[in-house]
Amino acid sequence: MKKYVYSFEEGKKEMKSLLGGKGANLAEMSKIGLPVPPGFTLTTEACIHYIEIGEVLEDSLKESIFEHLEDLEEKLDKKFGDLEDPLLVSVRSGAVISMPGMMDTILNLGLNDQSVKGLAKKTSNPRFAYDSYRRLIQMFGNVVLGIPGYEFDNYLEDKKDEKDYDNDTDLTVEDLKEIIQDFKDLIKNRKNVEFPQAPEKQLLMAVKAVFSSWNNARAISYRNHNDIPHDLGTAVNIQTMVFGNIGDNSGTGVAFTRNPATGENKVFGEFLLNAQGEDVVAGIRTPKDIEELNNLMPEVYQEFIEVTETLEDHYQDMQDIEFTIQEGELYLLQTRTGKRTADAAVNIAVDMEEEGLIDKETAVMRIDPEDISQLLHPNFKEEELEKADLLATGLAASPGAATGKVYFNSEDAAQAAADGEDVILVRKETSPEDIEGMVESNGILTSRGGMTSHAAVVARGMGKCCVAGAGDIQVDEASKKFFVDDRVFNEEDYISLNGSTGEVYAGVVETTDAHLTDNFKKIMNWSDEYRTMGVYTNADTPNDAQVAVDFGAEGIGLCRTEHMFFDSERIISVREMIVADSKKKRKKALDKLFPYQKDDFKGIFKVMQDKTVTVRLLDPPLHEFLPQNERDIQKLADQLRIPITELKRIIDELEEMNPMLGHRGCRLGISYPEIYKMQVKAIISAALEVKEEEGYEVKADIMIPLVGSEKELSILRNDAIEIADELLENASVKIDYSVGTMIEIPRAALTADKIAAQADFFSFGTNDLTQMTYGFSRDDAGKFISQYLDQEIFAKDPFQVLDQEGVGQLVEKATELGRKEKPDFKIGICGEHGGEPSSIEFFHKTNLNYVSCSPYRVPIARLAAAQAALKNN
Amino acid sequence: MKKYVYSFEEGKKEMKSLLGGKGANLAEMSKIGLPVPPGFTLTTEACIHYIEIGEVLEDSLKESIFEHLEDLEEKLDKKFGDLEDPLLVSVRSGAVISMPGMMDTILNLGLNDQSVKGLAKKTSNPRFAYDSYRRLIQMFGNVVLGIPGYEFDNYLEDKKDEKDYDNDTDLTVEDLKEIIQDFKDLIKNRKNVEFPQAPEKQLLMAVKAVFSSWNNARAISYRNHNDIPHDLGTAVNIQTMVFGNIGDNSGTGVAFTRNPATGENKVFGEFLLNAQGEDVVAGIRTPKDIEELNNLMPEVYQEFIEVTETLEDHYQDMQDIEFTIQEGELYLLQTRTGKRTADAAVNIAVDMEEEGLIDKETAVMRIDPEDISQLLHPNFKEEELEKADLLATGLAASPGAATGKVYFNSEDAAQAAADGEDVILVRKETSPEDIEGMVESNGILTSRGGMTSHAAVVARGMGKCCVAGAGDIQVDEASKKFFVDDRVFNEEDYISLNGSTGEVYAGVVETTDAHLTDNFKKIMNWSDEYRTMGVYTNADTPNDAQVAVDFGAEGIGLCRTEHMFFDSERIISVREMIVADSKKKRKKALDKLFPYQKDDFKGIFKVMQDKTVTVRLLDPPLHEFLPQNERDIQKLADQLRIPITELKRIIDELEEMNPMLGHRGCRLGISYPEIYKMQVKAIISAALEVKEEEGYEVKADIMIPLVGSEKELSILRNDAIEIADELLENASVKIDYSVGTMIEIPRAALTADKIAAQADFFSFGTNDLTQMTYGFSRDDAGKFISQYLDQEIFAKDPFQVLDQEGVGQLVEKATELGRKEKPDFKIGICGEHGGEPSSIEFFHKTNLNYVSCSPYRVPIARLAAAQAALKNN
Repeated sequence: MKKYVYSFEEGKKEMKSLLGGKGANLAEMSKIGLPVPPGFTLTTEACIHYIEIGEVLEDSLKESIFEHLEDLEEKLDKKFGDLEDPLLVSVRSGAVISMPGMMDTILNLGLNDQSVKGLAKKTSNPRFAYDSYRRLIQMFGNVVLGIPGYEFDNYLEDKKDEKDYDNDTDLTVEDLKEIIQDFKDLIKNRKNVEFPQAPEKQLLMAVKAVFSSWNNARAISYRNHNDIPHDLGTAVNIQTMVFGNIGDNSGTGVAFTRNPATGENKVFGEFLLNAQGEDVVAGIRTPKDIEELNNLMPEVYQEFIEVTETLEDHYQDMQDIEFTIQEGELYLLQTRTGKRTADAAVNIAVDMEEEGLIDKETAVMRIDPEDISQLLHPNFKEEELEKADLLATGLAASPGAATGKVYFNSEDAAQAAADGEDVILVRKETSPEDIEGMVESNGILTSRGGMTSHAAVVARGMGKCCVAGAGDIQVDEASKKFFVDDRVFNEEDYISLNGSTGEVYAGVVETTDAHLTDNFKKIMNWSDEYRTMGVYTNADTPNDAQVAVDFGAEGIGLCRTEHMFFDSERIISVREMIVADSKKKRKKALDKLFPYQKDDFKGIFKVMQDKTVTVRLLDPPLHEFLPQNERDIQKLADQLRIPITELKRIIDELEEMNPMLGHRGCRLGISYPEIYKMQVKAIISAALEVKEEEGYEVKADIMIPLVGSEKELSILRNDAIEIADELLENASVKIDYSVGTMIEIPRAALTADKIAAQADFFSFGTNDLTQMTYGFSRDDAGKFISQYLDQEIFAKDPFQVLDQEGVGQLVEKATELGRKEKPDFKIGICGEHGGEPSSIEFFHKTNLNYVSCSPYRVPIARLAAAQAALKNN
Repeated sequence: MKKYVYSFEEGKKEMKSLLGGKGANLAEMSKIGLPVPPGFTLTTEACIHYIEIGEVLEDSLKESIFEHLEDLEEKLDKKFGDLEDPLLVSVRSGAVISMPGMMDTILNLGLNDQSVKGLAKKTSNPRFAYDSYRRLIQMFGNVVLGIPGYEFDNYLEDKKDEKDYDNDTDLTVEDLKEIIQDFKDLIKNRKNVEFPQAPEKQLLMAVKAVFSSWNNARAISYRNHNDIPHDLGTAVNIQTMVFGNIGDNSGTGVAFTRNPATGENKVFGEFLLNAQGEDVVAGIRTPKDIEELNNLMPEVYQEFIEVTETLEDHYQDMQDIEFTIQEGELYLLQTRTGKRTADAAVNIAVDMEEEGLIDKETAVMRIDPEDISQLLHPNFKEEELEKADLLATGLAASPGAATGKVYFNSEDAAQAAADGEDVILVRKETSPEDIEGMVESNGILTSRGGMTSHAAVVARGMGKCCVAGAGDIQVDEASKKFFVDDRVFNEEDYISLNGSTGEVYAGVVETTDAHLTDNFKKIMNWSDEYRTMGVYTNADTPNDAQVAVDFGAEGIGLCRTEHMFFDSERIISVREMIVADSKKKRKKALDKLFPYQKDDFKGIFKVMQDKTVTVRLLDPPLHEFLPQNERDIQKLADQLRIPITELKRIIDELEEMNPMLGHRGCRLGISYPEIYKMQVKAIISAALEVKEEEGYEVKADIMIPLVGSEKELSILRNDAIEIADELLENASVKIDYSVGTMIEIPRAALTADKIAAQADFFSFGTNDLTQMTYGFSRDDAGKFISQYLDQEIFAKDPFQVLDQEGVGQLVEKATELGRKEKPDFKIGICGEHGGEPSSIEFFHKTNLNYVSCSPYRVPIARLAAAQAALKNN
């Protein structure tokens, strides 16, 4: 039989995949001499095996559990189930990848109607004993037996109201005894079972519940959202209890070894006296700052600070710790790498490098590129804030600024977001059931809970703005309102949140660009040292180009010219060009467009200076530029002085069954060579003028879209070169230009050697390439793609994360064929995937020269490219 | 310097690519001792070189021409340009692949104002001399100087009318002298040049004109239509003249060694006395049957028959011959493999095999598979013919039956055909300018010209029904009418043609299936001996299936189930299923469809008996089944008893931007598993019942469409197997079934190893695969594909002829990956390309197990598969 149970002494931190994160770290902490209550771990393999055989605990596993329990009895010299002085244990799940709030915990296991009396007598603290028993029954009822937690909570609230108590700690022994009886009745009523009195039965039921909870809906949803595989399983940790609820010299808390919001190198945490387990994170009482412990128990505080230093030295990273103080003794119940905001991640990485704790490569590898986007998000405009209507200030739980309409539950929020609304989710507090609404919202506001509450932790993980514990706000979820003093806010009212300050404003507050710190710039510069791929941007305007350059873009990989066509001043000429019934008329209309296009390109060239600007010639089908409704059609007919029937005929004729597979891209260039010729003339003229006027070494890459066969490209390339060379011959200056193509049609990838012979460069258009390779369009796949993700037909949405197995083959093949034809061939990628870290790593491995992405993703791409280089060297 | 000029003695028939077809065969005939006037050939390389250096004759080439001319002078003891007894030559093009009427000829070259007098005196036949000179000026003016031929023709017609002559031969010497002067004036007027008097100048200008004519528009169009490469060039043959126009003991003619319409083993030809060159094929006078020559000149006839036998023995194929009789002497001016109808091709091949002239392999290789379709075309129904309105009888120029609206010029015909009309092109006579209209028409009717006229030759080549020389019909092309006695027919009136009898009917005559001859069956059976690929059919109904089986189909490769959904009885249940808002309602509607589908399959299984039937599960997007106009929507809402607003919402919701890239194929199966389950149940139930009732060993292959990833297939395959196995378990009989997939999405081809692991077979859907690989849809590509063909971006329409370079790579890759996973994996193809000969050869080389095509293409596929096997063994 496989070894399914490991005592803490047998484990170490490297055994995470077997023991789970919690188990491995408990073992590691034991190993390095930190005060950890003894215990043992059931492995993730035991969980997978349990699920595979149909959720059954095999006898051999049970035996092994009880053998290890006997070891604990020996160590502590207590007996499990003893009536006088019972050994109590906690049963806690511990997945390989930390999943906060997702899995379940049972404390105080081993108590029953008899032994609670023994414990009361033995500790001379009946309140503690009965409170512990109450908690056991409550957690057992919820976690093991599946009774909703609020049924117990509501009962407790009612009881406190009835007695006029503020806190749980006000409950007396008699109160607790009543509660215990009522909880047992509740269980009996709801589930028609008795709360089990036999400790062994409690233990085995609890183990089963934790194992089974691996596949509960919340856990599956969290894993889906966080890209965690479903076949890892969870470990179960069975650990002797220590108690924070014995009295005011006891307590429990959580802490980070540095500030997880800012990265400041100072322990950051909260604790509650006379409390147990989840009390702090559940946000039931508002906890105290960890520094207060220094006043209350200076020695414990001192020890605690030393422990955090030991842990950071040992793990070389910021740690997230759970601890309990039992009658003045500190115990560690958990350590793990702490989640942090992007800001904190950057600051911690740079600080630790400067402290000599880690090297630069490690610092660069420490930042999740996706998190960087938090830093790039806009903040509120200072001048707007001055006149903004401040409603309340809560905890600055997750930085950033957000504006939107308020919704009071997850479904409403998700629905409104799906309808295109900006959404702020407002809740008393959040729970794992709210994940979907949180994902879809711009920001999250809670009226209860601290910096480590569910809302705060999850929002930080998502890089989403969150203000937590804003106590001045009273939330009534049932009637979908919230109140601030005498003001009432209803569903769909606008509010704004500043997650960096905790401020909540009524109405919309306008935002400004992100402020980038020196540490952020350091990480970016270090990234640039390691990455080998260039990072370009997709930008169609001088403004976008400037943002991208400020973010470190080294060129433009995709400048879409059609966006320029939609401008209101020009659209009439565009339309005139489209409805022209002769080449002459079409040229006349194009002549009107020429100066606009030239100015567009000049603006961009001036921003980009000596950097490459890759301009894609007209791509969308012409009907996209024509009006659709009767009134606009009539107006256009009047403007162009043609009969409306004629105009309608033209519009009809241009309509397509499948525009994505229609008359677009270079096919337009073949049919109407004069369009591309005008564009090339505008590009080259603009480049020459900017060189003349500003002296920049303008580099214009002309990119022909949607090529499927070499002949298309050779015809259009020759046209372009003819135009360009004529302009250059008559110019007083010289500029660099080249003519290349997008690879976005599968056939182009398959015949890339021949295409390369006609091209100066390739740029993968992975959006279209994904559409064609999968045979579905982005517009239409919406109907089934979420179903495909749910059914795990797709691991990821292929429009967000490059499908390396299928589409990736074409990228590899085209690169290989292109470089076979021209060994130093320049190849980039300008689809959405150019800003997605796992795709960027693939492009690095495929030896592309650069990725191009939207301006706000440029820093992400720089970091991801560096990590790709570090991982694959 | 390269050798650019070959005398006939230096050539042989194997040198066709250098000397052109005509030159090589003139050389070959000289070699085997047949009476060929001496001459020499300028090579195709000379032509290509001439074009490459900018249409210039190099001095060295000119020298070489005149050296060879001197040889001719020696042989004939005449001088080129001599004033008393001039050596005259013809200059004729000779391409590698025969292009009738496409290239140009000049006869009688060397005559001028002086030597015509000498010739008249020397031959004592001034009429002959001046007629020859008239012809030279006319041909030179047209071919070399580019004056439209009709200007000369109209002048001649007017002259004959003026003089009240019936025939050219009625023209007197004085008439001819006038004409010569007028023709010279015409040239001077139109082109401001004098007709050149120097014979050397005539010769060099003529050579240039022929070389340049390689790239004239007619030639390019013909090559495009006939898939002839554009870089072959044409040779030029310079040959001493012999004259058929000296008098009534002279003549000229063309003949086939066997009947080109029926294949009958009997010389078939026509001749004109006192005529020259193109007179016979131009249809100016109606020629005499070759047998009449036996009466007029029995010795010449006897010699001629012997020559035809010699040629057939030598070439081992039916020959198409041009000959001239000069004062009782027979000369051969050309031989080439004769074009023939498909019927004739089959009969000649079988006859020659039986005569021992060729073997069976050669017989099979002799038939162009595309031509076979002529034999499969419907004929008129006998009973319809009895009551049909016979208008006229012309020559049975190209067999088959055709019905359509009449159009009087090529453009109108092509336009109407593009609009979906059935078109009959009606012309006095056709010329190369009419090619496009001929291609697009169902049939061609001319009022003039014989069996070897342009219309007849080209129509036979195209396998298109043609009635030629229907003299009772008067065509007025200008007013777009034709007259038969006092009846008038206008544009768009219907007529019907029987190309096998020459009969022309007013109105529509209904057609019946083709009658297949014993010789045809012999060729098919021989084909089956050689081919290694199976030939399946695409059939959705028992009737189609029966036609295909009669044509030799060995199975069904594609049975589309959606066609069954459109049946009026069922569409209401289909629609009910689509608008169902719950799985339960959807199942209810599907339950109603089930018995229909089962009966559909039973009908097909009964026809196919023990042969495999591959059924594709539902493929098109659901909105295709819903009504589009207001009235039908209202009607459906009433039928389904749902509000019209609700129904419209559903229709809107189902609408797609790009249906081809939308929610279709297996994506529907994933979203609505109950649809596929119903279909699988219907297939398997039907198979079991047919096995029970009829005892056939039914073989059902269930095919899942549009798969892009292995998981889609595995989910749907498991569903299908579950349903099938349950039915089989409870059945009293066993049947064979399997579950496979189409490969029609590029990603499926790229990951075919993984997909194969989930499949029992593959079938390439090359229609969709072509669409996705090229990124354009069949519906939308219409707008630019003809332009792409014109500009030679595509050599062929990729929807008709498989793109081996691009799409073919995916076919090869998927086959290789599939067979790597499963070495004996069954792989077929069921796109349009399955019936196209060059694509079939590709599939043979790729080792596919079968091709599947429409029923009428099954014989073509059988033959093409045999030829592929013979060529590639």
